[in-house]
Amino acid sequence: MFQTAELGQKVSKNEFKQRELILRESLLELQRALREDGSFPVMIDFGGVRGGGKGTTTNLLNKWMDASYIETHAYGTPSDEERERPYWWRFWRDLPPRGHIGINLSGRYSRPLLDYVYGNSDLETYLHQLEQIRAFETALADDGALILKFWMHVRAEVQKKRLEALENDPLNRWRVSPEDWTHYEMYDRFIEAAEIAVSRTNTGDAPWEIVEGADYHYRSLRVGELLQDALQRHLRKVHIQRKYLDELHSEAKARDEGHESNGGSVQSLTILDALDLSLKIPKKAYRRQVAQLQARLNQLHMEAAHRNLSVLLVFEGPDAAGKSGALRRIIEALDARWYKVHPFSAPTDEENAHHYLWRFWRCIPRRGRVTLFDRSWYGRVLVERIEGFANDMEWRRSYAEINNFEETLVDHGIVLLKFWIHISKEEQLARFKAREETPYKRWKLTEEDWRNRARWEDYSVAAHRMIQATDKQSAPWVLVEGNDKYHARVKVLDAICQALERATID
Amino acid sequence: MFQTAELGQKVSKNEFKQRELILRESLLELQRALREDGSFPVMIDFGGVRGGGKGTTTNLLNKWMDASYIETHAYGTPSDEERERPYWWRFWRDLPPRGHIGINLSGRYSRPLLDYVYGNSDLETYLHQLEQIRAFETALADDGALILKFWMHVRAEVQKKRLEALENDPLNRWRVSPEDWTHYEMYDRFIEAAEIAVSRTNTGDAPWEIVEGADYHYRSLRVGELLQDALQRHLRKVHIQRKYLDELHSEAKARDEGHESNGGSVQSLTILDALDLSLKIPKKAYRRQVAQLQARLNQLHMEAAHRNLSVLLVFEGPDAAGKSGALRRIIEALDARWYKVHPFSAPTDEENAHHYLWRFWRCIPRRGRVTLFDRSWYGRVLVERIEGFANDMEWRRSYAEINNFEETLVDHGIVLLKFWIHISKEEQLARFKAREETPYKRWKLTEEDWRNRARWEDYSVAAHRMIQATDKQSAPWVLVEGNDKYHARVKVLDAICQALERATID
Repeated sequence: MFQTAELGQKVSKNEFKQRELILRESLLELQRALREDGSFPVMIDFGGVRGGGKGTTTNLLNKWMDASYIETHAYGTPSDEERERPYWWRFWRDLPPRGHIGINLSGRYSRPLLDYVYGNSDLETYLHQLEQIRAFETALADDGALILKFWMHVRAEVQKKRLEALENDPLNRWRVSPEDWTHYEMYDRFIEAAEIAVSRTNTGDAPWEIVEGADYHYRSLRVGELLQDALQRHLRKVHIQRKYLDELHSEAKARDEGHESNGGSVQSLTILDALDLSLKIPKKAYRRQVAQLQARLNQLHMEAAHRNLSVLLVFEGPDAAGKSGALRRIIEALDARWYKVHPFSAPTDEENAHHYLWRFWRCIPRRGRVTLFDRSWYGRVLVERIEGFANDMEWRRSYAEINNFEETLVDHGIVLLKFWIHISKEEQLARFKAREETPYKRWKLTEEDWRNRARWEDYSVAAHRMIQATDKQSAPWVLVEGNDKYHARVKVLDAICQALERATID
Repeated sequence: MFQTAELGQKVSKNEFKQRELILRESLLELQRALREDGSFPVMIDFGGVRGGGKGTTTNLLNKWMDASYIETHAYGTPSDEERERPYWWRFWRDLPPRGHIGINLSGRYSRPLLDYVYGNSDLETYLHQLEQIRAFETALADDGALILKFWMHVRAEVQKKRLEALENDPLNRWRVSPEDWTHYEMYDRFIEAAEIAVSRTNTGDAPWEIVEGADYHYRSLRVGELLQDALQRHLRKVHIQRKYLDELHSEAKARDEGHESNGGSVQSLTILDALDLSLKIPKKAYRRQVAQLQARLNQLHMEAAHRNLSVLLVFEGPDAAGKSGALRRIIEALDARWYKVHPFSAPTDEENAHHYLWRFWRCIPRRGRVTLFDRSWYGRVLVERIEGFANDMEWRRSYAEINNFEETLVDHGIVLLKFWIHISKEEQLARFKAREETPYKRWKLTEEDWRNRARWEDYSVAAHRMIQATDKQSAPWVLVEGNDKYHARVKVLDAICQALERATID
């Protein structure tokens, strides 16, 4: 594999200067086209042993193009902030927005590779991590991202010579650390680990390019020209794809007009129809139970925080189902320094410039926190599906993306519960009317609420399918009968307490 | 997850009869459209506990549609033939051709799931197997296949009642095996394993549908209508996609006309240029060495066969590089009962009706065999890439597919070596001319050889990239300097002996 980058490729200084000019102009032009198109980000990743030119090439790309639209991230030891969150958090946080270029040094491959090289993880773990990387890249590529990965290769002898030359130069001695020599001694192990990584993650959507890194001129032009070629190709592809997606989408829309699109008309019942909405708790019993549950929740939360367990609570359901009321009863039991509520409505421009999961990744808490999501990533398969903001292929593949996302959270030790608070269509109408008539509640009722109500059956079918696809023991949906608010609040509090009890059992 | 299929959905016999008529007509129409389109196969998989109606629904689909174009496969205990090959072999072998429908009962999910349920594999192994299934499905979906997976669900009580009813009926008693009752006892474990499988492999391209299996009428209509909906959608998608690909492809072709498309023009050398083609062995030394190596190979092969190790040898390289000559020297050392040579040229109609890897999977040998591939799956990234038989996206993603395929073989204990026998452009011309002048060799030279020769540089660049992407310690490329046939043959024989020695060391 790496022998293909040990050929002694060289470009003379003169030739370099000539070609650099042409290349630079072309890259600037393409960067402008990328910004104008604005539909996808470019993600560049540099890997390779020390001395392959990762850093200098990154600097050169920043110099060649307009650096205002390039974000460079180098990943060293994770910060406290980062360690307390899943491994993927920092990579999601740093994703470039559409129209921009992100460059990663020692990025997502770095820690799994080093762990394997140092013998801190076995082959099975390493392969599993590479698999997760592949899933991450697929999710972004499916969303349109252009992903390029360069492995900058130099032979061991070249690496040695370069380190020695730096050490012999008083002005550059500081650039060589003892770690560099340790890694040099482990050269073969690095190459073995790199070969595994490259062969397992060299996909059509996120290809690796192995670049001979010994000659500055050659490697710089090679990376630049590969980027140029890939950008050209991607812009063209995206352009043609857009026409085709428009056609596909509008045809599908015409076909589904006024007809639920969940495939087949035989499904008459949804899981929501099976809920017994007559369930009730008398006011007095409610007051007592809530007080008890809140005391229990407070205790359990302290215990969970002590164990560094975070809790993530997701609330979905029809408008006016009582989400806010339930949220409030939870919050009352917690200290404001330890919880955070994130309400979600239509995404902002900044959020829209990223993968749909990006805005939720930003809210993943540090250890020991309680985070409440008032609406969530499930919007993808509810409102976005129904209103056509996500096309057929997008919402259909998002069940897998969401399951993968949630597994990452759960693997990190986060307790994750998802609540669907449900009411009947009649109950919703009654509540809407009550809101209209109560001055201080009127603001809560919007045009959108009425529009959503008109698509009640579509939402039921979408919710049914969502629950079918994403209800897991590790991240269950709790279906809450909400016609009686007291019953709903007690059921929610009780479910949280039970989950925390299970999680804090030794 | 499965609670969505415990709602007691029912359809009356009368309603069923009415809707069945409409559905059947529609399915037949769609099946004809599928055959006419002829560009993709439909793969239907049934999973679920006993009593969910997998078998009866399969029979019904065969009855509703034209059974001549439906292939049903039920997978029990693997046969000898199957056990001696990688797990995936039997599923590849049975893939339906484009335009046909394949139905699998107890298919690719069955063994991993049962192993996990019975405790014969741990969670990590199970997840790894599911990951392999995902890769398998992705490769086929990328190739256009419509993949549908139905999980036929019934509650434990329903399952019990059904088994008891069968047992109490003298005519049907034979249908219930002790295993059925064992599985009933393990119901919860099945559901847990199924939830993991469904949540990990419920992708946009190969979705799971959980179907409530208790009522014959409901479940039959539900499966039929889901199939109808998916087929309609897929046919429409394929139709629009074809236009898009044509446009993309013709634009790319126009752009690349007369210009190598490997991205950037800076790469001047290929790995093939680095070969020292002046390497030579005198005739006398050659005779002695070949005899010695053949004796050694014979011994080593017997030893490998004794250990059930298979050997797979792949030969690629320019026309007239000496592949057949090298092949012959290997074969001379082996017993004809134990080896097989598969020459590959343009695919047949039947082969073209399948995924490009299908024709190679068919040739995967039983244990202890030596199999020689004269040209191989690497045609995908050589001739198919260069002649445009595989489009840009197809050949770019095939490196990952090929690596995955080869890992499956190596994991099964197959020794895999890939030889690139190389000659200079001048040497090729000399050999072509010699062929023209030698009557009994003239047939070996075709128009195609001259056409390939005209694209020598494209082939070099494609081979370079291929070696970069697919050279792995577990399945290495051996680059053979072929200008001197003696040297080439000795190097090939020696490499095989060395690989076998490594593989047969205790």
